[in-house]
Amino acid sequence: MTTDLSIAVDVMGGDGGLSAMLNGCAKALNEGLKSRLVLVGNEAELRRIIAEEKIAFPDGRYDIIHADGVITMDDKPSQAVRRGRNTSMWNAIKTVKEGQTAAVVSCGNTGALMAMSVMQLRMIEGVDRPAITALWPTMKDGKTVVLDVGANVEATAEQLVQFAIMGEAYYRAMTGKAKPVVGLLNVGAEELKGHELIRTAALTLRDADPEMEFAGFVEGDDIAKGTVDVVVTDGFTGNIALKAAEGTARMIAGWVREAVTSNLAAKLGALLMYGGLSKMRSKANPSNVNGAPLLGLNGLVIKSHGGADAEGVASALKVADSLVRQPFQDEIKSTIAKVKARAEKLPPASETDDSGEPREAVV
Amino acid sequence: MTTDLSIAVDVMGGDGGLSAMLNGCAKALNEGLKSRLVLVGNEAELRRIIAEEKIAFPDGRYDIIHADGVITMDDKPSQAVRRGRNTSMWNAIKTVKEGQTAAVVSCGNTGALMAMSVMQLRMIEGVDRPAITALWPTMKDGKTVVLDVGANVEATAEQLVQFAIMGEAYYRAMTGKAKPVVGLLNVGAEELKGHELIRTAALTLRDADPEMEFAGFVEGDDIAKGTVDVVVTDGFTGNIALKAAEGTARMIAGWVREAVTSNLAAKLGALLMYGGLSKMRSKANPSNVNGAPLLGLNGLVIKSHGGADAEGVASALKVADSLVRQPFQDEIKSTIAKVKARAEKLPPASETDDSGEPREAVV
Repeated sequence: MTTDLSIAVDVMGGDGGLSAMLNGCAKALNEGLKSRLVLVGNEAELRRIIAEEKIAFPDGRYDIIHADGVITMDDKPSQAVRRGRNTSMWNAIKTVKEGQTAAVVSCGNTGALMAMSVMQLRMIEGVDRPAITALWPTMKDGKTVVLDVGANVEATAEQLVQFAIMGEAYYRAMTGKAKPVVGLLNVGAEELKGHELIRTAALTLRDADPEMEFAGFVEGDDIAKGTVDVVVTDGFTGNIALKAAEGTARMIAGWVREAVTSNLAAKLGALLMYGGLSKMRSKANPSNVNGAPLLGLNGLVIKSHGGADAEGVASALKVADSLVRQPFQDEIKSTIAKVKARAEKLPPASETDDSGEPREAVV
Repeated sequence: MTTDLSIAVDVMGGDGGLSAMLNGCAKALNEGLKSRLVLVGNEAELRRIIAEEKIAFPDGRYDIIHADGVITMDDKPSQAVRRGRNTSMWNAIKTVKEGQTAAVVSCGNTGALMAMSVMQLRMIEGVDRPAITALWPTMKDGKTVVLDVGANVEATAEQLVQFAIMGEAYYRAMTGKAKPVVGLLNVGAEELKGHELIRTAALTLRDADPEMEFAGFVEGDDIAKGTVDVVVTDGFTGNIALKAAEGTARMIAGWVREAVTSNLAAKLGALLMYGGLSKMRSKANPSNVNGAPLLGLNGLVIKSHGGADAEGVASALKVADSLVRQPFQDEIKSTIAKVKARAEKLPPASETDDSGEPREAVV
């Protein structure tokens, strides 16, 4: 169906407005994006901004699909699906559904994007709910995938297993690592390690897919340590952990900025350490890791940060460009089906099952 | 009972060994600690280290209570309470129970410390479970108290209310702020803000104590922002958020270190910005914020980080020194009793109760 692997872009969402979106699209194309782009939004405004800002799109590498409406950041997901049928977001997702594009990228309202994607694309058979992923930089200069970071406030043990399967396939597609190591986020301290659900999930995960490298429980600090490749958690815990870490990172970045600019000597000092500081900035730059798929859907939906600048938008497009050329959606489907078939043959995981003990935490 | 407000120190716990503990004790006393110290541990070893390292304790400001055994970091809490009756930790807590000291400070095994404290000191009437607190630095150069960060893996709505009352009293004691603002940790995104328990807790909190400044829901990044003074959450989420943030902070600190030492020019540069960098280091130094009470017990128990050096131990002792001179334990008791009496008169909080709508998130 998707012969040219085009990518649809909902250009109306995002806090940076059309300018950031369009400059990001042109930047990505000029930097070697393989896919064509399908820009979905208000055609007149789009053309005006391109002309006004003299945005240099390479010839013939994009199309425009007009859409009247816009989903705002304040729209509730339920309202968006009921009344948002003519918006750029809805129509961009629709191009995926109809096979016109291979993926959609949006900087818009996450809740609306998720609700509209579920309604139009439907869940992969055997997956209950979509999951939002986050790509966390690590001390080892690698990345850790964390999911779910906010699509769901609760998750059953079976859903955590689904997240593990989806996260593993995504990590493999992003890095080429054949056997990503998966961990289940838990508290390490005290006798009662985690509540019953998390212990059941560990047992279920251990049994679910003998081919998965499941390392057992990991703790919050293992995310940045890079102890495992994929960290599985429910959306409540994952969202709070992600935001707590982001807030702390911003605070420390502020301290560094203060140290570097506190007086003239410090500014001179900063010049002398220019190389090291720019390397650090590059590692810490959120634009470099922008673009995360909503996993579990029959179609590729990439969420870009709402506040992304042109560089961030280009990053998200590059993520889409790479993912549409990987078989990871098919991998998710086949692993989910395999695990489901296996589960139907096995007795349910139970804590009294001798063989089912979760391995000790890897830390 | 506690006429001189002495502080008991379990000197045998901690990864830094007796040396860090004893140097920390002497440092705190030499820097003006008001309380006398009661050092609980192996007397012969204690005296040997003091002599060998020529640790300069001020005259007559400490006593030694001998204890044979030691609780190790690997001991399980249940084993510790069953078999740990002659350890330094048990005996140190016992001095609080018997009114010989006003507080106990330990760098040892958190689970054992909690279990032994609950067994000997018992919970405050109306408090179900102890809570572990964390003091988070904020962008505003202030502090946010987060609790629970790991004493319990689950919490009912009523227990979250108890945490709020305890955290508020603790924050007031630490800062002198008469009306600390309390927030409930939640996910901000999407239509379904949090699960049912968290919504019920918000309604309960709003009704529980009309004198409390309850600001509604806050998100993970509000902790470092300092949006509220006290952030209430269950121990599972709190522990993971704390460790995720700590891990991220350590990663960024590593990047800064790398930038500052990458080559000779950078090292020269670091010299030029010495003032700013040391100010930053001081803000980020965990020793400066070491020492957190286990709240909810009939007696003051301060947990110091297991890896604390002498400076960290001294910080924890200063926290104890300040808290024993505050009425915050009595405040917790009276507020818990007041809220309990009030709850018995009121109908239970319910989501359909018009007046009970939680306020919108403060962010």
